[in-house]
Amino acid sequence: MNRRRRSATSIDVARAAGVSQSTVSRALRGDPSVSAATRERVEEAAASLGYVPMESGRNLSTRATKRVGIVAPDLTNQFYPELIEPMRRALDRGGFRTILIPATDQDEQGLRSLANGSVDGVIFMNALLGDQLPNLVAARGVPTVLVNRELDQTSLDTSVVDNYGGAQLVADLIVSLGHERIAAILGPSSTSTSRDREAGFRMQLADHGIPLPSELMFRGSFSHETGSQGIDALLALRKPPTAIFCLNDVVAIGALSALHRHGYTPGKDVTVVGFDDISMASWDVFSLTTVRCGLVTLAKSAVELLIKRIADPSREHTRVVTAPELVLRSSHGPHHR
Amino acid sequence: MNRRRRSATSIDVARAAGVSQSTVSRALRGDPSVSAATRERVEEAAASLGYVPMESGRNLSTRATKRVGIVAPDLTNQFYPELIEPMRRALDRGGFRTILIPATDQDEQGLRSLANGSVDGVIFMNALLGDQLPNLVAARGVPTVLVNRELDQTSLDTSVVDNYGGAQLVADLIVSLGHERIAAILGPSSTSTSRDREAGFRMQLADHGIPLPSELMFRGSFSHETGSQGIDALLALRKPPTAIFCLNDVVAIGALSALHRHGYTPGKDVTVVGFDDISMASWDVFSLTTVRCGLVTLAKSAVELLIKRIADPSREHTRVVTAPELVLRSSHGPHHR
Repeated sequence: MNRRRRSATSIDVARAAGVSQSTVSRALRGDPSVSAATRERVEEAAASLGYVPMESGRNLSTRATKRVGIVAPDLTNQFYPELIEPMRRALDRGGFRTILIPATDQDEQGLRSLANGSVDGVIFMNALLGDQLPNLVAARGVPTVLVNRELDQTSLDTSVVDNYGGAQLVADLIVSLGHERIAAILGPSSTSTSRDREAGFRMQLADHGIPLPSELMFRGSFSHETGSQGIDALLALRKPPTAIFCLNDVVAIGALSALHRHGYTPGKDVTVVGFDDISMASWDVFSLTTVRCGLVTLAKSAVELLIKRIADPSREHTRVVTAPELVLRSSHGPHHR
Repeated sequence: MNRRRRSATSIDVARAAGVSQSTVSRALRGDPSVSAATRERVEEAAASLGYVPMESGRNLSTRATKRVGIVAPDLTNQFYPELIEPMRRALDRGGFRTILIPATDQDEQGLRSLANGSVDGVIFMNALLGDQLPNLVAARGVPTVLVNRELDQTSLDTSVVDNYGGAQLVADLIVSLGHERIAAILGPSSTSTSRDREAGFRMQLADHGIPLPSELMFRGSFSHETGSQGIDALLALRKPPTAIFCLNDVVAIGALSALHRHGYTPGKDVTVVGFDDISMASWDVFSLTTVRCGLVTLAKSAVELLIKRIADPSREHTRVVTAPELVLRSSHGPHHR
């Protein structure tokens, strides 16, 4: 009953690759002190022997800290706590404490502070498309996961919602309500979320034969202020739009607040649709029609990816994509001709 | 030029107290392995010699982690990020990383996780009046600070706003507007913030000859839902109030959202006043009249107290009280007879 095929150990890999056991350990966690040629040789030997570094073994050699760093921007932006809180809880359940790392540490010092052994893994939640830091941290052998936003070029573990598909749902809804003069308040073009939501929205509108001219696009940061400024700009047009897609809920709530100031009733005078479904989207005063991202699902799957990566640094990288869902509340309505 | 009076060292203190040098170190950081009698003897010797433990010395003997734990409840309650974010920034500036500790760890395990050397200090932001954990953590020699909420009995470093005085300002405002049927939506009576705000409000109303009968008091948690439920209950009264003091802004915003649902216009049909001045209080859609706590000031002074305590564990305990200020926006108005 208890007979098992003996699994390969790091000693076997060391022998096969002709290096020391500690070199095997360093090579497999991507330590830069190991040359690329040696790393390749070790990886080949490990693969051919079916060797998988075990968590307990790793802990002995690298000293587990049971801490995970979350690279987090301003917590007072209402979106981030909605993703950090479920990650923190999932990490606590997994036996890890959460360390908040300022998102501004995008330099050599930031890299050192993440790759100095003070954390067992890092989660990036607001990476920009061109950021190199997540790749550099991972290359130092630190388990690394992207959540919410992706990079241009990376093979890191990633947990995202289908941003393109979610934006298509919004375009279909707005067009089905009879709107033709449709605007969008966009986020920074350096983010995958804004890029993919904009592309999905634009392509789906085009499918319906409706353009998205530049005068009907307002671009800013993903902030309350952007929503407010976007409304001011769009209402000042000679012919304002009758429907506005805001690329996230924080922006949409800024837009609703500004519409209130202008005396407009969302859902009656103008249609506003957001994206994310943060908790305040459901408040009576907003009752925002939006796209549900499943932020708790997104968060949990990011933590699950990280914990698996910590346990098995050589496992294949995974991209988990959550399906979005339209949530119909009161901020949308038919176009009155 | 370089001549200085030689300062006392821990060796001098050890000799004077007749104990080992390591006992001096343990006694002065409140280690429970040292008896009360020995601690007293060491403290007396240290005081008479003018000995002050230096940070560098402390680091050598206790291994500084450059990490601080913030015991934080649910981040999705909009109040907490407004206090955590400026603390995190101040800690980063001071060279410390922030670890989020779940507020539910109020047991022996919670104590061990805070007093096991994994952090250089702890900040409690939502302590209940009867909580023992902050005192126990401090008794283990871990520098400990209370922010926002106080304990019943403690001599810990504390950074709070003058909750009593702030609530008096609210009572004066509401009475000056001619209101006589005045209600309050209160927080948990186990918190110093609710206790002191309620007392200040009630006493100041009494000074104006106005009672606060129990039918006009609604008590719940400090949450959006409490504000919403409070409005439902107060509007269902045979004679609803014309002015409502909500004991914090999160509750007040829940109240405003519910009033919107009931078709009431705050500032015209009913007066609503909050407490804290979180950022969304200034949004056009709320424009909440409230009491400014100076949350950034509160946060910075808490971090300053902690950093000073880490540098000098034997310094006198300090209670820093920030002065509140009334912020007049649009949610208050005169009573229409």
